[in-house]
Amino acid sequence: MKEKFPKGAAWMNGQFIDISEAKISVLDWGFLRSDATYDVVHVWNKRFFRLDHHIDRFYASTKKLRMPCKIKRNELKSILAGCVKKAGFENSYVEMIQTRGMSPTFDRDPRKSVPRFIAFAIPFGWILEPKKINKGMDLAISKIKRISPDSVDPRVKNYHWLDLVNGMYEAYDRGHYTAVLIDENSNVLEGPGFNIFSVSSNKLITPDKGVLEGVTRQTAIDLAMEINIPVTKKSISTEEFKNSEEAFATSTAGGIIPITKIDGKVVGNGKVGEITQTIIELYWEKHNHPDWTEDINDLL
Amino acid sequence: MKEKFPKGAAWMNGQFIDISEAKISVLDWGFLRSDATYDVVHVWNKRFFRLDHHIDRFYASTKKLRMPCKIKRNELKSILAGCVKKAGFENSYVEMIQTRGMSPTFDRDPRKSVPRFIAFAIPFGWILEPKKINKGMDLAISKIKRISPDSVDPRVKNYHWLDLVNGMYEAYDRGHYTAVLIDENSNVLEGPGFNIFSVSSNKLITPDKGVLEGVTRQTAIDLAMEINIPVTKKSISTEEFKNSEEAFATSTAGGIIPITKIDGKVVGNGKVGEITQTIIELYWEKHNHPDWTEDINDLL
Repeated sequence: MKEKFPKGAAWMNGQFIDISEAKISVLDWGFLRSDATYDVVHVWNKRFFRLDHHIDRFYASTKKLRMPCKIKRNELKSILAGCVKKAGFENSYVEMIQTRGMSPTFDRDPRKSVPRFIAFAIPFGWILEPKKINKGMDLAISKIKRISPDSVDPRVKNYHWLDLVNGMYEAYDRGHYTAVLIDENSNVLEGPGFNIFSVSSNKLITPDKGVLEGVTRQTAIDLAMEINIPVTKKSISTEEFKNSEEAFATSTAGGIIPITKIDGKVVGNGKVGEITQTIIELYWEKHNHPDWTEDINDLL
Repeated sequence: MKEKFPKGAAWMNGQFIDISEAKISVLDWGFLRSDATYDVVHVWNKRFFRLDHHIDRFYASTKKLRMPCKIKRNELKSILAGCVKKAGFENSYVEMIQTRGMSPTFDRDPRKSVPRFIAFAIPFGWILEPKKINKGMDLAISKIKRISPDSVDPRVKNYHWLDLVNGMYEAYDRGHYTAVLIDENSNVLEGPGFNIFSVSSNKLITPDKGVLEGVTRQTAIDLAMEINIPVTKKSISTEEFKNSEEAFATSTAGGIIPITKIDGKVVGNGKVGEITQTIIELYWEKHNHPDWTEDINDLL
């Protein structure tokens, strides 16, 4: 049985390989305990977007998990750029991963494992395809609670997604496109791969805790500041979110994504909001600005 | 760089292979989203212990995750026995896994993936080595809360272990052997790979919710019933647990494991308790009883 893979390239064990060859042992704790952290940066027109932000978070995450990444920043950039180059992408979704690795004796003590670094580039992917962007997302508010920060630090980007996956199935069952999960007080938090924002009275709000501190979330905040729209980080109740004048999601997989329906309720007039649209345009404008991007060819 | 592997064999894509060849794509959602479930059964003197209990739970888990395992019970048993046979083990730790699999286009919708089944056998492993069993475990009560059942159903055996791994590091930092995690009310729940029991006044108690319903946990309950020791499933506060007359952990990786110190407090007289010792002996006696075990050679 020959498996089909997307186009792509990876870097493992010191070499670049085709994505179809990028495999890890089933004994790696990154698989058997999801004992791993990662980051995803995107490339648009052969330029990385806010690469240093992603690398900063990746280094911080590997440190917090007590397996600091040993690859220096310049080498890391060259590996990531090399994956994109080898795959021949103009636009790409580029992932860097560090797992706890494997113990040669299957010792259960995580300190006995040798951490493993992996990087790969695949085609750029979208939470919502560009042709659907003007329609926006129809979001369910899930009954499932996002894994609490008292259990797993959401700022350490991680693969603990079963709550999010179950949230997606719940959304599909109820006829929605995707879902946002809640906290123990039914405040909305985040969805599978995205942060959320609510817009009302010319102000943005986004959850302050219990969520990944997304680079695209930060970008939306930075862009709002540029156009003098104030941003507050605070809890957002289900009701407050449903009554937003505008709403959007943020993700490396597609940037700023309008939300036009929340749990069956139309947001505003059901079209992409004015502030959302402005931030979308600013977001893509920044993609050829030298302060925000790096040419892959300068990093190889 | 040649990686070192433990001895072992695996079954993937319809064939038996050496454990060193058992690898999954880095694009499998079982890795990138820890979207997977598994079960572990052990073989002792070439006999599986309570295999049907593990298979029942595995089938239930794959159904709950909306990817019911398609391999029939007899074939599944033959695959598991085949892994043990190929590796030539008398005693073994045998894992069956189902992941969400991979989408050939990296589509984010989990319904677009083809689930993947993997099985492997490696040498039998111990939470606490037999030579240390009479000393018992020195357990820390972690400050970390186990992932809540409101987020991820702990009865679906899963790889969401970052809370447990951080609990282990916390235990090591504080000079303990391993840790038990707590719930939001500071009741003790479970540790990395084991359930817990408290023994007082000739009665057993074990947490009723927020934990994996372990097969060895059920075995301890069944064995206690055989010797007329009542068992109650209920919340156990930190204080109640520390004041236990005896305490033990249960795991497929070693069976019944005495706990002789809890968060610095000696349990009972610091030796393996009488009831614990009786259950340990009964546990190993059952390992050649035909009602509790199946010969691997009868399953091939």
